[in-house]
Amino acid sequence: MQKLKNKRVISRLSRYKNALYRFRELGFERIFSDYLAEEVGVTPSQVRKDFSLFDITGNKRAGYQINILLEKLEQLFLKDRIQKVIIVGAGRLGSAFSHYRGFSREKIEIVAVFDVDPTKCVGSKGVVPIRPLSEMESFIKSEGIELGILTVPERVAEEVYQKMISAGIKGVLNFAPIPLKSTETCIVTTYCVELELETLIYFVNEGIGGLDAEDCD
Amino acid sequence: MQKLKNKRVISRLSRYKNALYRFRELGFERIFSDYLAEEVGVTPSQVRKDFSLFDITGNKRAGYQINILLEKLEQLFLKDRIQKVIIVGAGRLGSAFSHYRGFSREKIEIVAVFDVDPTKCVGSKGVVPIRPLSEMESFIKSEGIELGILTVPERVAEEVYQKMISAGIKGVLNFAPIPLKSTETCIVTTYCVELELETLIYFVNEGIGGLDAEDCD
Repeated sequence: MQKLKNKRVISRLSRYKNALYRFRELGFERIFSDYLAEEVGVTPSQVRKDFSLFDITGNKRAGYQINILLEKLEQLFLKDRIQKVIIVGAGRLGSAFSHYRGFSREKIEIVAVFDVDPTKCVGSKGVVPIRPLSEMESFIKSEGIELGILTVPERVAEEVYQKMISAGIKGVLNFAPIPLKSTETCIVTTYCVELELETLIYFVNEGIGGLDAEDCD
Repeated sequence: MQKLKNKRVISRLSRYKNALYRFRELGFERIFSDYLAEEVGVTPSQVRKDFSLFDITGNKRAGYQINILLEKLEQLFLKDRIQKVIIVGAGRLGSAFSHYRGFSREKIEIVAVFDVDPTKCVGSKGVVPIRPLSEMESFIKSEGIELGILTVPERVAEEVYQKMISAGIKGVLNFAPIPLKSTETCIVTTYCVELELETLIYFVNEGIGGLDAEDCD
């Protein structure tokens, strides 16, 4: 299969995977595209189109075999190995992510949290140690870390991001409310909660109901 | 102007607005599309196309007038009034959002936090009171609240979401890791941090660098 460069396809495939896990837990062995479409919030034809990327076609009467789909999707998302991730910024948001239990079922492991003040820890101490920010670069290099979650304040975000990149980080989820730019070696995705709320406010005020994320593109 | 139904256009307009604020703070009065494009991570032609929706065209030699653009954008996002938002779920993530300072500059006010256990509060108590979940519906109705941030555990997310809708909520940002469905009266946007990480992991492992959110659609 060719490399997929479309972020929204990849995001949909990840959502299919999670939905398929849920169906399998419920005892399903096969699934029709319209069930999966309903669960994920896309059209059945979109599901069929996305799976055709893997040369998988469903059977009109019997649907898709869940295990075969999951095998392909797990291969794609490298679910055979643990992905090590660091969190940079031990404020409330960083602390929330370091305690989040949803990572382990996705084989994502938060291996360290960094902060300028390693004694600072909002709420109860977690199992993940908080280390001084000055040790971040050597840690990234020695442990071969490629992924980071950036939850530092806005004013230092760019500086810390540059340090992460030069130490070898290749993918960053940024929660500082400024747009950071991807480079040749590092992809960054910024999530800005006020921007998401603002978009929602627009649709609510315009009285545009019944939209799903995928519907309104 | 016609109602815009495309979520990604609205999201870009929100990002232009925030970038324009930054340029204005730096003393700029006019701006070229390529500066704004660079700042937001889209192409200059995309910027020009988006602004043409407002019947605003830039001057090739002098660019756009920042104040005129901001006036239109503020109208669109109703920046003349305060948007009241509730948070449902006072765990670590809900607590992080209730303390977040980025909302006030966007005229977003968190007016209440609800939890099954209102005495629970991770970290220091905030200025926003935590109320019992049983009072949520009457609060939404009496205060005319239309927007909510949902940070409850996965297993109760659907049930709480339905209660929010029936009380009159019209827009929800969902952080529970299950897809909730928009209805005729309520739009929901789900953010799932493990799904975002997974998408990032795919691109990092495939060695696809240099992508920005807008580039890879």
